[in-house]
Amino acid sequence: MRKVAIIGLGQTPVREHWDYSIRQLAVQALTEAMKDAGRSNLDALFVGNMLSGALAEQEHLGALIADYAGYAGIEAVKIEAACASGGAAVRQAVLAVASGQVDTAAAVGVEKLTEFSGKFTSKGLATAADADYEASIGLSFAALNALMMQRYMYEYKVPKDDFAVFPINAHHNARFNPNAMFQYDITLRQYRKAKPIADPINLLDSSPISDGAAALIIVPLDKVKGQDNAVEVVACEMATDTLDLANRKNAVWLKAAEKSSKKAYSVAGVGPGDIDLFEMHDAFSIVSVLSLEACGFSEAGQTLKKANEGYFKIDGQLPVSTMGGLKGRGHPVGATGVYQILEAAMQIRQEAPGNIQVPDVRYAMAQNIGGSGATIVTTILSK
Amino acid sequence: MRKVAIIGLGQTPVREHWDYSIRQLAVQALTEAMKDAGRSNLDALFVGNMLSGALAEQEHLGALIADYAGYAGIEAVKIEAACASGGAAVRQAVLAVASGQVDTAAAVGVEKLTEFSGKFTSKGLATAADADYEASIGLSFAALNALMMQRYMYEYKVPKDDFAVFPINAHHNARFNPNAMFQYDITLRQYRKAKPIADPINLLDSSPISDGAAALIIVPLDKVKGQDNAVEVVACEMATDTLDLANRKNAVWLKAAEKSSKKAYSVAGVGPGDIDLFEMHDAFSIVSVLSLEACGFSEAGQTLKKANEGYFKIDGQLPVSTMGGLKGRGHPVGATGVYQILEAAMQIRQEAPGNIQVPDVRYAMAQNIGGSGATIVTTILSK
Repeated sequence: MRKVAIIGLGQTPVREHWDYSIRQLAVQALTEAMKDAGRSNLDALFVGNMLSGALAEQEHLGALIADYAGYAGIEAVKIEAACASGGAAVRQAVLAVASGQVDTAAAVGVEKLTEFSGKFTSKGLATAADADYEASIGLSFAALNALMMQRYMYEYKVPKDDFAVFPINAHHNARFNPNAMFQYDITLRQYRKAKPIADPINLLDSSPISDGAAALIIVPLDKVKGQDNAVEVVACEMATDTLDLANRKNAVWLKAAEKSSKKAYSVAGVGPGDIDLFEMHDAFSIVSVLSLEACGFSEAGQTLKKANEGYFKIDGQLPVSTMGGLKGRGHPVGATGVYQILEAAMQIRQEAPGNIQVPDVRYAMAQNIGGSGATIVTTILSK
Repeated sequence: MRKVAIIGLGQTPVREHWDYSIRQLAVQALTEAMKDAGRSNLDALFVGNMLSGALAEQEHLGALIADYAGYAGIEAVKIEAACASGGAAVRQAVLAVASGQVDTAAAVGVEKLTEFSGKFTSKGLATAADADYEASIGLSFAALNALMMQRYMYEYKVPKDDFAVFPINAHHNARFNPNAMFQYDITLRQYRKAKPIADPINLLDSSPISDGAAALIIVPLDKVKGQDNAVEVVACEMATDTLDLANRKNAVWLKAAEKSSKKAYSVAGVGPGDIDLFEMHDAFSIVSVLSLEACGFSEAGQTLKKANEGYFKIDGQLPVSTMGGLKGRGHPVGATGVYQILEAAMQIRQEAPGNIQVPDVRYAMAQNIGGSGATIVTTILSK
């Protein structure tokens, strides 16, 4: 089992990309990452994507992107695990390099959602839920998360206003990230007035449908140790849970987040207290809360209190969503997990924009969540 | 880099499965494979599937199948590479176990195509081609293969009748495989009269749309060496080519088949002459010919002559499609690659039905092809 490192980072801005196709977005990110890595040879490509088949009628993205990026012939495959597709693609690239059979692997997350009608996109996203027992009775993703939020508010007797701190923090950090979709602050007043989506979730609880691509180049650690651009992947662990919410004993506890983070802590030899920043999967405000609790960053029911005391702000004890998170940077579904790990790597390389660079980062963690918590990939990076 | 072995095999019959859903088919195959392996613990699941999102509106098959098979919580992900999704899933399982991070992995290929209207299925299959430059101008998969067949007939001046030997052989072998879809012989007379699909391809040149699931359990070789049910994966290699046929210099040479088989021979330390049987990807008769040539089993343009002399029959020098191949056993797209490797493993374990058991198998090879040759996985097994 050889150790692995990330030595190349590439990303497109997260936007509504009307001028670029899926393959073009992916090629831009991969080309930038290879340039950043200072490499010209690539052995294997793992593409994280969820919806290109259903929306753009294009499957087979592995071979397609390898060819268009100038690497025709290499091993290439698409990895799908709903909104955790990006993190899962990184996991496959890590396994490939760790196996000794692949020397230079790329993980590219790419998604293009905004050019399709909302009806198709919502229907596509609902394929992450159980088609027979959830989607078929009309449960969209916002609705599933609304059930979780409602239950959390009931269980821990917390008011809705308390959740505002997460989107406000995400937008604040996104202001300084030139690749973020929403580079502006929002206020509690705006949060209170935001359009309802699925009660109690409103528009500002929800991350946006987005387009974008991000890429990482992964190589054996021993060959790059000490290089300025090398970041060690000390752990990248995946766990799953039931797809349908109704089959879980506790709807407000992300078992797969607990399991994958515990595995990651154990492999890395660290605990939650050692983590210096956390790129979390804030697809909806409630997901931030559940992710932080399952990873051991706060006790069940205590997260909103901690958050409203400033604990998770950029200058707090555990900065989260430092580049804007899914809410501020945007959520190009299958690309999101790669963006998160890329941003954590930028923080370790001290390459984040000034106002959102966390000082003295030893361990940075990223967590990518698919469905309503059914697939979760937790990654810990270090210098 | 640790060596790996297959110790469990499971499959459903290939049929029109009106009584079982995707998850049920997958669970049947996985449960049978775990029983065959004599194991109860599973660490990771790799699901090969192409079209469940587009057809059944169900993505996120990794977590779903893990849960329904009784392994909720384990690492699980879907792998997609068009019709090579099954082979690609096996490749990921091999890498995972080779890495040392996973001890017991399952590769499950599953597809359910027959309950949808042919219009949707054809459109779904066309997402394996280039959406912008092929599918959008009406090129279906049969049409793309017809172009290749036409070109081959022109290039090597061979009559269409010469191709009949492949479907006739496939049906003949399928007769003895209880899991095959078509357990009956066909004749040259029937081939000549078969309904045209896309000239020169007729119905009997074409493998059928099917439903089915197959599963393999993959573990480190050193722990099972010598066990009766253990089959070593001596090589499992993937290569790619351009998605679109028009961008290839030679439309009748499968570069990715050449590349992945050469890698596989090199890793295994063997040559084409050492292979005792070949489970090939006979989706259309022309694909059989191109695959055999690119893998070095016959010279370009000479394959049909060799085939008509009996070289590839069950008692010939290189038996192919021993359990019926895609034409006779059926082609449940994302499951096919797993069926092929499972059948090769059965041959090595001497568990094939009497009439189609190849005697003294030392090396068995399987090759899974996605699109019109854009993703190809070549696997060599040995005792």
